[in-house]
Amino acid sequence: MAAARAVLLTGSNRGIGLELVKQLLGSPRPPAWIFATCRDPEGPRAQELRDLASKHPNLVLVKLDVENPSDITDAAKVVEGKLNGMGLNLLINNAGIYTPTASLETVDAEDMVRTYKTNAVGPMLMAQAFLPLLKKAAQDSKEKGLSCSKAAIINMSTVLGSIKKTADSFFHPVISYRCSKAALNMLTMCQALTYKEAGILCVALHPGWVKTDMGSQEADLTVDTSVRGLLSVLPILSEKHSGTLLNWEGKAIPW
Amino acid sequence: MAAARAVLLTGSNRGIGLELVKQLLGSPRPPAWIFATCRDPEGPRAQELRDLASKHPNLVLVKLDVENPSDITDAAKVVEGKLNGMGLNLLINNAGIYTPTASLETVDAEDMVRTYKTNAVGPMLMAQAFLPLLKKAAQDSKEKGLSCSKAAIINMSTVLGSIKKTADSFFHPVISYRCSKAALNMLTMCQALTYKEAGILCVALHPGWVKTDMGSQEADLTVDTSVRGLLSVLPILSEKHSGTLLNWEGKAIPW
Ligand SMILES: NC(=O)c1ccc[n+]([C@@H]2O[C@H](COP(=O)([O-])OP(=O)(O)OC[C@H]3O[C@@H](n4cnc5c(N)ncnc54)[C@H](OP(=O)(O)O)[C@@H]3O)[C@@H](O)[C@H]2O)c1
Ligand SMILES: NC(=O)c1ccc[n+]([C@@H]2O[C@H](COP(=O)([O-])OP(=O)(O)OC[C@H]3O[C@@H](n4cnc5c(N)ncnc54)[C@H](OP(=O)(O)O)[C@@H]3O)[C@@H](O)[C@H]2O)c1
Repeated sequence: MAAARAVLLTGSNRGIGLELVKQLLGSPRPPAWIFATCRDPEGPRAQELRDLASKHPNLVLVKLDVENPSDITDAAKVVEGKLNGMGLNLLINNAGIYTPTASLETVDAEDMVRTYKTNAVGPMLMAQAFLPLLKKAAQDSKEKGLSCSKAAIINMSTVLGSIKKTADSFFHPVISYRCSKAALNMLTMCQALTYKEAGILCVALHPGWVKTDMGSQEADLTVDTSVRGLLSVLPILSEKHSGTLLNWEGKAIPW
Repeated sequence: MAAARAVLLTGSNRGIGLELVKQLLGSPRPPAWIFATCRDPEGPRAQELRDLASKHPNLVLVKLDVENPSDITDAAKVVEGKLNGMGLNLLINNAGIYTPTASLETVDAEDMVRTYKTNAVGPMLMAQAFLPLLKKAAQDSKEKGLSCSKAAIINMSTVLGSIKKTADSFFHPVISYRCSKAALNMLTMCQALTYKEAGILCVALHPGWVKTDMGSQEADLTVDTSVRGLLSVLPILSEKHSGTLLNWEGKAIPW
């Protein structure tokens, strides 16, 4: 498989998103464009991203809060301008939030809704806004079938969104997070069925339990290992994976 | 199994909720209390419910909008007062909304959030508010294991919330509805795991495709058939069903 020429990520200023940017930049055939979006590209939380951008002309920082529909459509215009007729091959919906303390005893409506907006509604709006650019990439590709180098949507999900696997990890109840990610898994399936005809692959990925601000230092995997895994899974994805949930090693997780 | 002594339903002024009230009232051993809640018990949409209440002293109408957290806690106080020391055996989270036209092309953030609030957050808040009364019922029961006559939460879900089954019914994309019900299925699993220790059974039920305002007249089942099915499933539920999704005939549906 050829590598994706144009990639866009959300929540790319820290954690898994930032490491994805770094490893994509350092890959043997880096993308022609990496659109690293984050909430505040001018602020202190995006310093590392700005340092990288000063060294890599193919890295473009774009302001984008996934909770804000007009931010999303504005960003799509900026990206369209930069691509100048080219399509977007890969949309990685990585931004996410997590309330570690949300058991059924403590969770409230506000936390449920806020988490849903970021983790499920955001990815839905992102795909809507970037659909014309993803379609363009698919149309311009000579590849048959579906692939990440042609056109794909990757939703960063989690095994905690697997209803079937809930009992295995319920020592972390995280109700608002689990419900939002189960919904994201459903969204991924609906996207796969809807966007198949346009030549766009849609997959949900579980990065493992990763040492980031979200995952904490108790986690199993370094961010380096997780992202190396995720980036080695992308090239093997084809139409048979569209509408599935896979982990960072490419293993299927049940719904 | 003994019949449930005290039952509460949401969205009971029409459709499946109203039929549940009617068939519960007409059953050989009707509950001592049926708390039929709805958004506007004084308004024209609750006329049938008021007519029933005038004939059945065990039927109590309570105002409750599942989108409104303070309505829910107020209703729990009213019900606690009426029960006067007795517990609540059965909470049926039936209220739901549906945007028939919501494809990925047309769905927006507002529809996603509104549908999630009613279909997933509402049932979460209902269980929180009525938990003390459900626990009381479980404690007062002499039955072993879990059952609907002891203490149970029934979340009215749908096969459209099954991620695995999505392709079978995708001629109705209904994205906002599907995502909210996948989240409700996850909630049901979390409730089953959390409330098991308190002796409360938690199940998600699919009523079939039913001729109501939501299901339309194109649907497969009459509301009478669907509710007869649902009410014949309740008495067979035990601990092995807690945390599952079953249809109106008691058949399991995958997540
Ligand atoms: N770490 C794990 O163990 C783990 C496991 C399974 C799945 N995941 C998933 O992997 C993804 C990345 O997780 P992570 O561990 O890297 O988390 P993280 O270290 O907490 O980073 C989260 C990222 O998302 C961004 N973000 C949050 N809300 C946003 C919004 N409304 N708009 C735009 N960006 C937003 C954050 O930006 P700010 O700096 O502006 O807050 C940050 O860049 C998430 O979707 C998460 O659910 C992580
Ligand atoms: N019909 C089907 O084919 C079908 C299939 C699968 C699952 N279901 C599920 O079965 C349940 C009942 O469906 P139905 O067919 O009877 O629907 P329906 O005929 O549209 O009735 C919906 C009921 O929910 C109430 N409701 C809506 N939002 C509410 C809120 N915020 N607070 C309180 N009540 C609210 C409505 O009250 P108002 O009169 O005040 O609007 C009405 O009583 C729903 O959860 C639905 O998702 C139905």
